[in-house]
Amino acid sequence: MSNPFFKNNGPILILDILKILKINLNDLKENININDIKDLSASNKSDITFFHSKKYKEAANNTKASFCITTESLKSELPNSCLPLVVENVLVSVSMITSLFYPDAVNDDFDDSTTYIYDTNFKDKVIYGKNVLIGKNVSLGSNCKIGHNTIIEKNVSIGNNCSIGSNTIIRNSVISNNVKVLDNCVVGKHGFGFFPNKIKNLRYPHIGVVIIEENCEIGCGSTIDRGSMSNTVIGKNTYLDNQIHIAHNVKIGENSIIAGQVGIAGSSIIGSNVRIGGQTGISGHIKVGNNVEIGGGSGVIKNIPDNSKVMGYPAKNIREFLRDNK
Amino acid sequence: MSNPFFKNNGPILILDILKILKINLNDLKENININDIKDLSASNKSDITFFHSKKYKEAANNTKASFCITTESLKSELPNSCLPLVVENVLVSVSMITSLFYPDAVNDDFDDSTTYIYDTNFKDKVIYGKNVLIGKNVSLGSNCKIGHNTIIEKNVSIGNNCSIGSNTIIRNSVISNNVKVLDNCVVGKHGFGFFPNKIKNLRYPHIGVVIIEENCEIGCGSTIDRGSMSNTVIGKNTYLDNQIHIAHNVKIGENSIIAGQVGIAGSSIIGSNVRIGGQTGISGHIKVGNNVEIGGGSGVIKNIPDNSKVMGYPAKNIREFLRDNK
Amino acid sequence: MSNPFFKNNGPILILDILKILKINLNDLKENININDIKDLSASNKSDITFFHSKKYKEAANNTKASFCITTESLKSELPNSCLPLVVENVLVSVSMITSLFYPDAVNDDFDDSTTYIYDTNFKDKVIYGKNVLIGKNVSLGSNCKIGHNTIIEKNVSIGNNCSIGSNTIIRNSVISNNVKVLDNCVVGKHGFGFFPNKIKNLRYPHIGVVIIEENCEIGCGSTIDRGSMSNTVIGKNTYLDNQIHIAHNVKIGENSIIAGQVGIAGSSIIGSNVRIGGQTGISGHIKVGNNVEIGGGSGVIKNIPDNSKVMGYPAKNIREFLRDNK
Repeated sequence: MSNPFFKNNGPILILDILKILKINLNDLKENININDIKDLSASNKSDITFFHSKKYKEAANNTKASFCITTESLKSELPNSCLPLVVENVLVSVSMITSLFYPDAVNDDFDDSTTYIYDTNFKDKVIYGKNVLIGKNVSLGSNCKIGHNTIIEKNVSIGNNCSIGSNTIIRNSVISNNVKVLDNCVVGKHGFGFFPNKIKNLRYPHIGVVIIEENCEIGCGSTIDRGSMSNTVIGKNTYLDNQIHIAHNVKIGENSIIAGQVGIAGSSIIGSNVRIGGQTGISGHIKVGNNVEIGGGSGVIKNIPDNSKVMGYPAKNIREFLRDNK
Repeated sequence: MSNPFFKNNGPILILDILKILKINLNDLKENININDIKDLSASNKSDITFFHSKKYKEAANNTKASFCITTESLKSELPNSCLPLVVENVLVSVSMITSLFYPDAVNDDFDDSTTYIYDTNFKDKVIYGKNVLIGKNVSLGSNCKIGHNTIIEKNVSIGNNCSIGSNTIIRNSVISNNVKVLDNCVVGKHGFGFFPNKIKNLRYPHIGVVIIEENCEIGCGSTIDRGSMSNTVIGKNTYLDNQIHIAHNVKIGENSIIAGQVGIAGSSIIGSNVRIGGQTGISGHIKVGNNVEIGGGSGVIKNIPDNSKVMGYPAKNIREFLRDNK
Repeated sequence: MSNPFFKNNGPILILDILKILKINLNDLKENININDIKDLSASNKSDITFFHSKKYKEAANNTKASFCITTESLKSELPNSCLPLVVENVLVSVSMITSLFYPDAVNDDFDDSTTYIYDTNFKDKVIYGKNVLIGKNVSLGSNCKIGHNTIIEKNVSIGNNCSIGSNTIIRNSVISNNVKVLDNCVVGKHGFGFFPNKIKNLRYPHIGVVIIEENCEIGCGSTIDRGSMSNTVIGKNTYLDNQIHIAHNVKIGENSIIAGQVGIAGSSIIGSNVRIGGQTGISGHIKVGNNVEIGGGSGVIKNIPDNSKVMGYPAKNIREFLRDNK
């Protein structure tokens, strides 16, 4: 998907990138243009990529990128066609280079380009409340309803038959058909991802978006953050109750049901047909399989295989939990 | 109480109801009009009711309804005056018939009938902020204050001396005197009740309302869902802190104090003089007695008798909890 | 700091105060004016103070106040220059007298003095969205952005280079430079502090403010309550994720990182360089030291010393927690 939300400032000359990374590359033959920064698998010949953990060894072996930000100990995994750029801290360096390509994706100031919906072409196409604001280049399907005081920021795309509540803010999101987003939600702000730094933390760009697939419902007061390098995805026909927090890069499968006040931390992947009880918390970078049931109030701190029923903090087999707590 | 919020589409001919349930009733003598669908106890001769669990056997024995949606194994409990309509899944069938009587109670699209308060008769009666919206047939008592951007949707009734904050949405609710609802709340949306169904979940109507009795206070960012068949009730002089979620059909007694970020799942009943510590979660269909104290962070998964002090996940006697966790 | 938010109704004659407390003071020589009610250390000769717990014995020994609301058993700790006013319930009496000095600090009705920002002097100084409201005597630094529908109530002070999101409400707060407050937040309302009372609870004034120091970020949907007698403080460069609740009088140090849905109850003090995992709850009146790490989902019910790593409910040493839960 080309990214309509964050303008790519590229191409950028490789020597300008090396300067920022404070790297002097003797092997460099030509000061070529770099189009974009992408992950190992998505990169093409004219992109720069990054490799910071052995977990991604296979993707590193096969990357098509010409340059890769990485470490001394990992660089041998790269193919000959990819020049390693060895740095001390891969993620901080990636943050700096991504900020170079996507300067608008670092901060989340409000969209000051919006206009009242009655001044747009949607005024005869959509049923809308008072004080509805629409950003530039927004796309709205047929038969949609948008409640009072709701703000749809620039480039957002919403499908047919969608109902958006009142006092809701949607940015950097692609929403399919038949989706409901209820009142007081914030969808698509940047995630809670930054490099801690005394005096002033260093935010890195979030160039991912929020994708909400068809037939979903998002409850009141929920927050769904957009991805940093990948997207945050809510799968088809998945329902979220009120006051739920979905962090950046989270992916939830289809037909899942998530009860009130659940929180899912960054980059976790939840399967399809999953049921999560109220107030459950799921740590970051966790994988929850398909057809899993998680009892209310659980704290999930390790992966859960398909077809499991778990409960507790930390979550374990539900029968075990109930037996141990008789 | 007659229900001012959801217009009853009845009377509906019993043959039209049977058609939807795909029932061919040989015993039926006359194609009579059915006025409403109600629970077993509330039904009159011209209503249809439903009976799906042995728990309600006594009510079933005494129902005055002429027709009852039920199962093969339960139908013998009904009196002779009540014809059983045997179906496979009682709740799905009830959902279909309730949708027939109350088509407007299935979805929660925003109220597009609202007008600015300064264009209503309340403009000289109420102290109000900017951009306040009032639906049709709203009733507001004397000496009320309504903050900026707040939306009071159609048919809502608010008593005397109430203070409603800013950015708050109230629908399908009856609010008594001296109540405060603080900022950014959503009161009265439908609950998280639906029948899971691959491809597209099936929502059933929520024809209950939210009742907030006198002297209550509801903290910022809280969500209180209306009932499905019964009402959601917050008893007199009960105080809720910020970011609390009260699900559909929940009933809370008088003089209770509920700290921040507590969540109470659907249909649970909380007594009077109850104190609930912050972030506690209470499962659905639980009964918490009077004069109960629940420590912060607890997860309540079974009933709690009167005068108990509990804490933990799952919640147990508080002294036991503290001893086990020394 | 002089308090620009709550107008002091003083001076008030001591005989008027004694009347309310139902105290007949034979030792009283002169019906002098009392300027203010302050805590033991902050009081001057013309103030009244209060002393309700032995914990504050040292401050009581050295108070400069001329009058002190206290109990029979504590009064001997006061210096001769300070006349004890003996009551049954110190805090209820303090509430009554504070209400006398600060009648506007008891209720949190919306600020009806606000005007649209385009009608103020800020219209050429600030980048602002639609429907932004500004109260009387607000101060805004240079290079600020304020999102749509946001309300900055009277006397609030905001520094330079701040970005305030949309649909956010800020009152009774002092915000330093380079602070971001994201969407749908409520900052500065009174805390959940009141005296429970059958029929109608008794709210006491909250005359503290919220102080947010420079370089902080406050996530979407968060609520930060102002202090009752002292202030609620978020230290420099501390970042809060979404849906966080910070209760009244809480103080958080510098460079701390607090993940989504965390709740911190009233009067707790959190150190600097603290990291708190998502959904953690911290009880009231707790002290968490510097450089502490608290795992997600924890429930902290006792003090945590500097440099500790804890997790669990109740929170304990993290290695112990993980070992016990293998």
